[in-house]
Amino acid sequence: SRTISLAVIPGDGIGKEVVAEGLKVLGAVLPSDVKLETRAYDFGAARYHATGETLTDDDLAALKAHDAILLGAIGDPSVPSGVLERGFLLKLRFAFDHHVNLRPGKLLPGVTSPLAGKDDIDFVVVREGTEGPYTGNGGVLRAGTPHEVATEVSLNTAFGIERVVRDAYTRAQARPRRKLTLVHKNNVLVHAGHLWSRIFAEVGRDFPEVTTDYLHVDAATIFFVTQPERFDVIVTDNLFGDIITDLAAAITGGIGLAASGNINPSGDFPSMFEPVHGSAPDIAGQGKADPTATVLSVALLLQHLGYDQEAARVEAAVAADLAERGTGTRSTSAVGDALAARVAG
Amino acid sequence: SRTISLAVIPGDGIGKEVVAEGLKVLGAVLPSDVKLETRAYDFGAARYHATGETLTDDDLAALKAHDAILLGAIGDPSVPSGVLERGFLLKLRFAFDHHVNLRPGKLLPGVTSPLAGKDDIDFVVVREGTEGPYTGNGGVLRAGTPHEVATEVSLNTAFGIERVVRDAYTRAQARPRRKLTLVHKNNVLVHAGHLWSRIFAEVGRDFPEVTTDYLHVDAATIFFVTQPERFDVIVTDNLFGDIITDLAAAITGGIGLAASGNINPSGDFPSMFEPVHGSAPDIAGQGKADPTATVLSVALLLQHLGYDQEAARVEAAVAADLAERGTGTRSTSAVGDALAARVAG
Ligand SMILES: CC(C)[C@H](C(=O)O)[C@@H](O)C(=O)O
Ligand SMILES: CC(C)[C@H](C(=O)O)[C@@H](O)C(=O)O
Repeated sequence: SRTISLAVIPGDGIGKEVVAEGLKVLGAVLPSDVKLETRAYDFGAARYHATGETLTDDDLAALKAHDAILLGAIGDPSVPSGVLERGFLLKLRFAFDHHVNLRPGKLLPGVTSPLAGKDDIDFVVVREGTEGPYTGNGGVLRAGTPHEVATEVSLNTAFGIERVVRDAYTRAQARPRRKLTLVHKNNVLVHAGHLWSRIFAEVGRDFPEVTTDYLHVDAATIFFVTQPERFDVIVTDNLFGDIITDLAAAITGGIGLAASGNINPSGDFPSMFEPVHGSAPDIAGQGKADPTATVLSVALLLQHLGYDQEAARVEAAVAADLAERGTGTRSTSAVGDALAARVAG
Repeated sequence: SRTISLAVIPGDGIGKEVVAEGLKVLGAVLPSDVKLETRAYDFGAARYHATGETLTDDDLAALKAHDAILLGAIGDPSVPSGVLERGFLLKLRFAFDHHVNLRPGKLLPGVTSPLAGKDDIDFVVVREGTEGPYTGNGGVLRAGTPHEVATEVSLNTAFGIERVVRDAYTRAQARPRRKLTLVHKNNVLVHAGHLWSRIFAEVGRDFPEVTTDYLHVDAATIFFVTQPERFDVIVTDNLFGDIITDLAAAITGGIGLAASGNINPSGDFPSMFEPVHGSAPDIAGQGKADPTATVLSVALLLQHLGYDQEAARVEAAVAADLAERGTGTRSTSAVGDALAARVAG
């Protein structure tokens, strides 16, 4: 019998609520010969206030021992902007080298896009997760004065780009349409842009069956609105990926449905799965949060661990549930119960 | 009698076609006691191929003598990406210190947004135009090798942020809703982000009647799709502004209608007005391009030069024309003729 050792990070706000439902569905879908061992970690705003810690070396060592991580949401208005983002979320992505940030943009049956007449949206964004403008590089001079200068340095390496671009080609190769779009801004950010374009072309030689194209990030946002069906797989830089995946969520039914995986394909470190949404403190503790994005993140987790059938069952359960949802509102746990019943049944 | 000395840069592709219509409307709307003197400049791909030049010191000196600049579009696939963008467009914006990049996002009557059920979109983006990731700062190490490293440095100064933020507050103060939203990513780009947030708060003390809020750029793209009516004036960094103004164009009827001004409010250098769209080589020379974005850019130009009534007449003509457009297609010059007739009549 097999065992999955899962680190669970409920986090802040609605994070706790949605993670509970994700675990409910995970428990229900796993074959009976698979043992699920979970350990919860109390990272987030409360721990930061109590101890001043966001993520220590000991924490990282403990997390490393797991097969995967399920995260709810981290962040609270009581903590200054950037502290938990840089000190926890990004620290973890960088420490565990989560260079493939995977974010599907799929309009599931039963979901109405805010885009009039669009019902055929099914792409996946492969966002680089460990480089670009996210490295924290940069600083300030003459802080707090009228002469302050602040810099942000985007760091991009051939090594870092090659591996994520290759991952994206591999995913494109495995999809029916076999199309890969590079999104960047190589007419302005010429140094990084040309490096991305060079590697994109070079790696492409190993994937002759994959059709490629290139879009500037600004133009890409237009096509997300006017022609989202043109996209199959998109590969892009960390910051552009952050922006366009929120837009992708918006056009495919909203942030309540958007799943993500922070993946280290090497397996040297556990990968992390989390809904794209935040901790939504305004509705926390009221049982109002939609756990669907977390449940879909559980599907990505299952896929990553090789449980493809189970992943497909979770996705199918979500699709079936969405198709019947209508406009009534159910509580967070009611949605989780319904999904768990579907995957079990 | 007054004179307007206008530099005209038709540029590449459809640039030439749309600029001709912009001038037609400008000529028709100006009072008879205003003399319009235009001088055309041949910047763009053809000149680059012939001479290797994009924009020389002499060119800049010549342009400086004008009251304003009207630009069509610059760019052609025959020129490597970045050469004309950095060598002409951005060089000019930087040389003439066009720090207020003004881009209205307004759904005009008669235009259907691709967003289902949204008919109330009327905001303006004030994009910083001379700093941020657009400075060209950065470089490459070990170019062309598997060990290449490329950097892009975003430069941000209190001086540069203060002036554009103040401009945005002033515009917000003059609008009925008096609301200003700062868009950045201060939870990740903490150095630049905190500088923007500090200046935004400080300048705000001089505008007690303006309501403010803050959105991360990723979240802003969601609201553009789900709740565009929430925006009044937006102020943002150069790159975020580039991205969200294309998105703004997409939700308000497309890039064929999106106008922009590259403004230097000091008057030390002429400001430049241009449609947001590019040179569209695929449809160039066929009379298919929609000149409306250029005509609306002419309205911004008129406003900038103090011809408020004439600007309003151009806008009204466009609105009236749009309301009657239906689905038939007219040629570029037919649209220009119709608009010129309306503003004259
Ligand atoms: C919270 C923030 C650090 C994060 C990011 O920018 O990556 C979030 O927006 C996301 O997309 O996961
Ligand atoms: C062509 C390019 C340099 C330019 C920019 O990025 O500013 C364009 O996209 C724009 O928005 O005017």
